[in-house]
Amino acid sequence: MSGSERSRSRTIFVGGEDPNAYALRAIVMLREAGEDEVVIIKGRGENISKAIDIYNEIKERLGDGLKLVGVSIGSEKSGKRKVSYIEISLKLA
Amino acid sequence: MSGSERSRSRTIFVGGEDPNAYALRAIVMLREAGEDEVVIIKGRGENISKAIDIYNEIKERLGDGLKLVGVSIGSEKSGKRKVSYIEISLKLA
Repeated sequence: MSGSERSRSRTIFVGGEDPNAYALRAIVMLREAGEDEVVIIKGRGENISKAIDIYNEIKERLGDGLKLVGVSIGSEKSGKRKVSYIEISLKLA
Repeated sequence: MSGSERSRSRTIFVGGEDPNAYALRAIVMLREAGEDEVVIIKGRGENISKAIDIYNEIKERLGDGLKLVGVSIGSEKSGKRKVSYIEISLKLA
């Protein structure tokens, strides 16, 4: 569900900031992005639920103007341990 | 990505138990489930990242025997407030 099927992407990594701040940044990126380009909201570990909060915030602002291209989940290495992640791929509809 | 396209499903709601306990329960359900039936791991709010931990745990145990049918995200009402959720739909491959 991720990777190979997208040609270009811009990624927002979710960290300690307010969900609203990320949502606004994502909307700016979505407007800058080309037709074949997706914006990815990526959250790891404890930030996974915030990534979905951000998606919901964007969805509330853009409504049908937002297309959820796909959701990818899995685990990846972070130093010695493995952490779960989510990648939410978005486009303007 | 959820709802209408599945004919039958069994849902595991993620709460306070250990991820391992849910993973084992899901594997039992997957083996009991019929061909046209999916098992859904559902997490809300703070339990969303645990839902993905559980998916990764099942994936580690079943490997290519597990098929990720789809991931649905959104928000729903919980009393007066809205909470984010994730639904991870699984089948045996």
